[in-house]
Amino acid sequence: MGKQNVPDIVVGRLPIYLRALNRMLQEGQEYTSSHELGERLGISSAQIRKDLSHFGEFGKQGTGYHIAYLRDQLRQILHVDREWPMAVVGAGDLGRAIAHYKGFTPRGFRVMALFDADPARVGERIGALRVLAMDELEREIKRQNIKVAMIAVPAEAAQEVANQLVQAGVRAILNYAPITLAVPPEVHVQYIDPVAHLQHMTYYLDA
Amino acid sequence: MGKQNVPDIVVGRLPIYLRALNRMLQEGQEYTSSHELGERLGISSAQIRKDLSHFGEFGKQGTGYHIAYLRDQLRQILHVDREWPMAVVGAGDLGRAIAHYKGFTPRGFRVMALFDADPARVGERIGALRVLAMDELEREIKRQNIKVAMIAVPAEAAQEVANQLVQAGVRAILNYAPITLAVPPEVHVQYIDPVAHLQHMTYYLDA
Repeated sequence: MGKQNVPDIVVGRLPIYLRALNRMLQEGQEYTSSHELGERLGISSAQIRKDLSHFGEFGKQGTGYHIAYLRDQLRQILHVDREWPMAVVGAGDLGRAIAHYKGFTPRGFRVMALFDADPARVGERIGALRVLAMDELEREIKRQNIKVAMIAVPAEAAQEVANQLVQAGVRAILNYAPITLAVPPEVHVQYIDPVAHLQHMTYYLDA
Repeated sequence: MGKQNVPDIVVGRLPIYLRALNRMLQEGQEYTSSHELGERLGISSAQIRKDLSHFGEFGKQGTGYHIAYLRDQLRQILHVDREWPMAVVGAGDLGRAIAHYKGFTPRGFRVMALFDADPARVGERIGALRVLAMDELEREIKRQNIKVAMIAVPAEAAQEVANQLVQAGVRAILNYAPITLAVPPEVHVQYIDPVAHLQHMTYYLDA
């Protein structure tokens, strides 16, 4: 099935389904339904069935979805049935929290390189990693064949870091800096800006 | 204009417009156009004009948008022309990074209370704050009239924390725990799950 056929908004929901299925498995559950999944996620069961139908026929009439099977299928579809080595640029508070975060490896990612522009930070050990200088970025990312990176530097520095990452071969960037990046069309970028989420919600709060 | 008339997806783009306008102001720019803004953000100029038209007539034929004026209007619309006191639950690596983050106050938020369930962390100083115990949460949140909170605890603990926050009067929760929360309809929740963003992108990467 051609990837161009699946709307990006549908792709964006698959990790949420996968996350819920993993939780159900942890809770000892074996089967679920689009209805139950929808209740848990606040998404209509029709939406879930429609989303999954882009990729195949996963449920059985009467028994619903076999959770472990659907989980494995989603992991394959999202290409997280493997472990992606990841680079993190920025070893400040956020970069450190990312480097220490235990939640990546069970879900397909592992921080394998950590860079910072501050000479005072270079060489420092953070978890199992040693902070590398920016002029080691391209060589190290190529050496480890890293395709995925996270940017945790101030907004002013983020575009230049993105340029270096792309130059080194990175094809997916998760950007924590509160700035929209310009990248070539073959490079994917997603954004995490907590303040944007907070402002989205205060819109609805009474003054 | 009734809030129910504006689609939530439009509301979600306003903080991104606001962010870009602030950056333009920092760069010394005085006027912009929907075209320029769109170029910067990878959004069509027609979309930007349509989004803003929900709230009024901000641009002038010929001169475009006066950036400072549009910025002030968006701050009012999003209710961030004031400072929202915020609670953070979880004083691990992520909670610490949040407590240290300098990016909240210029954009309408300030961390005013930090809680953790671990007695070993209670009393510890993190920046200007002292970590409080969970049994102080309700009193402290009511005392400071806090309506906005961030959850930075493990997934297993997040629902119970959300229940306590809602009970204490919180109406907007930014949840970093990788789990979908059940909350009453008057409470707003947004999610930050970096792994979901990463998986969204690896879908498009060749295996």
